[in-house]
Amino acid sequence: PKPWFLCKLCQVVWNKHDISMKIGIVGLGLIGGSLGLDFRALNKHTVIGVSRRPETCAKAIQRGVVDDAHTDITFVASADVIFICTPIAYIASTVDQLIPHLSSTTILTDVGSVKASIVRTVEPLWPNFVGGHPMAGTAESGIDAALSKLFVDRAYVITPTQKTLPDSIAMIESLARSLHSKTYICTPDDHDRAVAWISHLPVMVSASLIEACLNEPSDDVLTLARTIASSGFRDTSRVGGGNPELGMMMARYNRDEVVRSLKAYQTQLSTITQCIETESWSELEEILQHTQTSRSTFL
Amino acid sequence: PKPWFLCKLCQVVWNKHDISMKIGIVGLGLIGGSLGLDFRALNKHTVIGVSRRPETCAKAIQRGVVDDAHTDITFVASADVIFICTPIAYIASTVDQLIPHLSSTTILTDVGSVKASIVRTVEPLWPNFVGGHPMAGTAESGIDAALSKLFVDRAYVITPTQKTLPDSIAMIESLARSLHSKTYICTPDDHDRAVAWISHLPVMVSASLIEACLNEPSDDVLTLARTIASSGFRDTSRVGGGNPELGMMMARYNRDEVVRSLKAYQTQLSTITQCIETESWSELEEILQHTQTSRSTFL
Repeated sequence: PKPWFLCKLCQVVWNKHDISMKIGIVGLGLIGGSLGLDFRALNKHTVIGVSRRPETCAKAIQRGVVDDAHTDITFVASADVIFICTPIAYIASTVDQLIPHLSSTTILTDVGSVKASIVRTVEPLWPNFVGGHPMAGTAESGIDAALSKLFVDRAYVITPTQKTLPDSIAMIESLARSLHSKTYICTPDDHDRAVAWISHLPVMVSASLIEACLNEPSDDVLTLARTIASSGFRDTSRVGGGNPELGMMMARYNRDEVVRSLKAYQTQLSTITQCIETESWSELEEILQHTQTSRSTFL
Repeated sequence: PKPWFLCKLCQVVWNKHDISMKIGIVGLGLIGGSLGLDFRALNKHTVIGVSRRPETCAKAIQRGVVDDAHTDITFVASADVIFICTPIAYIASTVDQLIPHLSSTTILTDVGSVKASIVRTVEPLWPNFVGGHPMAGTAESGIDAALSKLFVDRAYVITPTQKTLPDSIAMIESLARSLHSKTYICTPDDHDRAVAWISHLPVMVSASLIEACLNEPSDDVLTLARTIASSGFRDTSRVGGGNPELGMMMARYNRDEVVRSLKAYQTQLSTITQCIETESWSELEEILQHTQTSRSTFL
């Protein structure tokens, strides 16, 4: 049912996208599975999936993640839009396997947490590709971890290039909005630089904190530190104690930006260390006042 | 009423400490005020307080934080135990002012978040001093922020020296346990080294993260980073966006340990940065696996 209040232009967009589609999902893990649950819940699309493991296909059908699933990748080739939800390392090879079976109108998109390297690799293989990054997740993984409404109110970043078809961008944006995500459009490079700051750098910063504490030479002090650690340490160390594979992928596929952010971070850390060493208290106070007032501009 | 099941030894301890005492509190802010609320709730002690501001005294009486309060420091001199809950910078001068009015049996204790420098200064002034650190707090401060049961299940670290009277240690431990805190006894130096790791270092690490992000030269990227920042950034940056005065005090009064922990931290950070720069992925994986499994040994 169309809301009556849409303006002419919006109605054109609405009519274009409020259509029943065939949505393919390759990789039925946490993200792929959760996308399937939500797209099916809209009661207008057909969702078909591919997983390498027959048990995952069976479970996906049983859990209502997909209408149907298969281990053969050609099973999703007839879809209008295909979401590639494999680990980053398999995105390019998945596209390679799909291409011979696609019609030229098929839109490919992915959900990888880095974008520049993926877009640079996939776009030449399939021009109708739209890079995407739904910024949601839990500590779990796999089809069992799939959750409905995982993307509600979360950022969904879409990273087209100058070559990406405007209609395909609009289609992915419309699908992301149908999940109640907040959509943002930027270049792959800007995406990678921004996630280096707010997601990848924090992991390295936080992991270094845990490692540094563990290197305390006195057993008494380490035991005491372990015992009295509370919310401050818990929060600052949380992402450093997360999934190591995820941390690896960030570093590996967003290497240049992560290194760049780490070096800028080290400069700040040296400034603070020097303030304390030289007892430049007013300078330290200025920094800590700045971080206090500025933190609220994030989040 | 004595529980019937106490053994002989416990009964001796119990009889000794299950007594009505006169408790003095100097500084009726978040910690001093919360201590007063809890000690009064035990319905056996008399709690008297001192604040420099008459309005704070009036409010403390009205809120039931103390039985009585006064702006004159000699008002608490008749107490059996005096908790000095002023900012760290005023602890020594408070002790100086109190000393001429105390009986030799009066136990002085403090609640400062660093211990070595305080104990080193105060013990020569008043040998019956027991350093203490109730590890509880909120983002708020002042008498209005005082909360009952603030110390329940929180660590209360007591830092005697070889000169501290065993009876005085036992008395402070008993009072801390009556708040349902978990008590720990260690040297002032071990305390300061442990809190450097789990409390002070995290503040500097977290503040540096905020500062580094803010130095991103591209406005577009910074705006995007601000917009898509979520739980990972929120948690890692939390303590770096906290009260600047508290961060200053940590650095100032625990300078050597904070600098030491920062240097050890920088070494770890460099190791991780180098792993990423040189693409030593198996080494990075090992580190991240180690931080994942080790984090749970804290907390």
